[in-house]
Amino acid sequence: MKVIRTRSEMRRIVKEAQAAGRTVGLVPTMGFFHEGHLELMRRASECDVVVVSLFVNPTQFGEGEDLSDYPRDFERDCEMAENVGVDYIFAPEPEEMYPEGFATGITVEKMSDMMCGAFRPGHFSGVATVVAKLFNIMPADRAYFGRKDAQQLAIIKAMARDLDFDMEIIGVPTVREDDGLAMSSRNTYLDAEEREAATVLHRALESAVAMVENGERDPEVLRSVVSATIESEPLAHLEYVDICDNIYLRPTAELEGEILIALAVRIGRARLIDNVILRIE
Amino acid sequence: MKVIRTRSEMRRIVKEAQAAGRTVGLVPTMGFFHEGHLELMRRASECDVVVVSLFVNPTQFGEGEDLSDYPRDFERDCEMAENVGVDYIFAPEPEEMYPEGFATGITVEKMSDMMCGAFRPGHFSGVATVVAKLFNIMPADRAYFGRKDAQQLAIIKAMARDLDFDMEIIGVPTVREDDGLAMSSRNTYLDAEEREAATVLHRALESAVAMVENGERDPEVLRSVVSATIESEPLAHLEYVDICDNIYLRPTAELEGEILIALAVRIGRARLIDNVILRIE
Repeated sequence: MKVIRTRSEMRRIVKEAQAAGRTVGLVPTMGFFHEGHLELMRRASECDVVVVSLFVNPTQFGEGEDLSDYPRDFERDCEMAENVGVDYIFAPEPEEMYPEGFATGITVEKMSDMMCGAFRPGHFSGVATVVAKLFNIMPADRAYFGRKDAQQLAIIKAMARDLDFDMEIIGVPTVREDDGLAMSSRNTYLDAEEREAATVLHRALESAVAMVENGERDPEVLRSVVSATIESEPLAHLEYVDICDNIYLRPTAELEGEILIALAVRIGRARLIDNVILRIE
Repeated sequence: MKVIRTRSEMRRIVKEAQAAGRTVGLVPTMGFFHEGHLELMRRASECDVVVVSLFVNPTQFGEGEDLSDYPRDFERDCEMAENVGVDYIFAPEPEEMYPEGFATGITVEKMSDMMCGAFRPGHFSGVATVVAKLFNIMPADRAYFGRKDAQQLAIIKAMARDLDFDMEIIGVPTVREDDGLAMSSRNTYLDAEEREAATVLHRALESAVAMVENGERDPEVLRSVVSATIESEPLAHLEYVDICDNIYLRPTAELEGEILIALAVRIGRARLIDNVILRIE
């Protein structure tokens, strides 16, 4: 496995691989790998060459957010990536990605202002912009993103579709701890008691799934059950629970088609998100 | 020469040409060709394959602007392009470029809000977004743009640089009528008297060039001379004259390096732009 620091070298490697008839899979990450990331890398191994980008992107963090605290362990990350067969890690410095005079931003309207976007203004513009850069630096055949970040995945799919990027965007199912907590680098912010409380996210979503399986079709009923479950946990502070279609993230009055139920909860200094996707006939 | 209507076919053609080792030159246009366009196409012939896109992009026209009046003559355009050796015309319908649910926009900050941007809010976001789409649909080796649209060229270069598009952006010198008027599809809006008055744009810029050659280095002095020349023409209504660096379009207190003097003038129902680029030691 090789670590690449510059955009030009990274692009040359990807283009040369493709010119030699090899497919390239890209896994964009912010590092501090857990099983969720490793699962993305394993899925990407269906391509001939696997490239993982590791860049804690400053432009997607708001003021007062956890940019400076964001957990990092580059050596451990490299070891873990190498063990699952990654070929290249692209790890640029911020100045390599955002040289002096940088001025361009990409926004996906409507989808970016709701849910997490309402609590993190500018976040998804930072995400869409850096992902477009990564797609141009590493014009892979496929890019792999976790479904835990459902809104991010929908926005990246919209951006790639709208701007005609020639890349297949693949959403990979969330990897969970044994008690159901979705894996996240931010879980390291939780102390033992908070870690226990954090299981409430998955439990709340599971209760909604059970209700749908029993025939419930009113989004408002589901939303209030999920809210009530979260609020029953004293350490958990609900930011939102939203029910919408899983492509355009439009709020839905009727449960039909591919439905996303997504939530964000603050526990201690961690902001945790989770979701479930339902296919309803 | 072949006319292509769909993004997928256009991309396939470009990629196949490149896979066969041929270089591709792209000329994005809104059609109604004049010598300025043909000059872009001739320059693009340094590439093995020349692709011209012809798309009157609705998202770069503001309310009350001339989208519905914009001059069009597809058959004449095809004939002219074929005569200068163009291989493909990409002419999509608006629905092919902006399907239902389209929501993505690209903005180049600061550079987009001044000069023409101040008079045409949203215009350069429409331009940057459609050009990014065109670059992804036709990932050419080089793209050619006219220097008459100096602000547009600077913004497209910034967008391509910031988003890491792997394409060389080439600015081609303005082609002028015998009396100095910059060629423009919008010159067709001028009646005989207005057409005569329109020569004032080039004359005003030439007077600034002469002053710089005679040692003048104060931008404010140049600006007032250009303004006064425009205002001496009763049919001409000055929108702006701006003096700035030609990369980031930052207003400049000192005339040094590559300097852009750009202006926009309304004559009758035409809005005309022109500029000159000076290299000052």
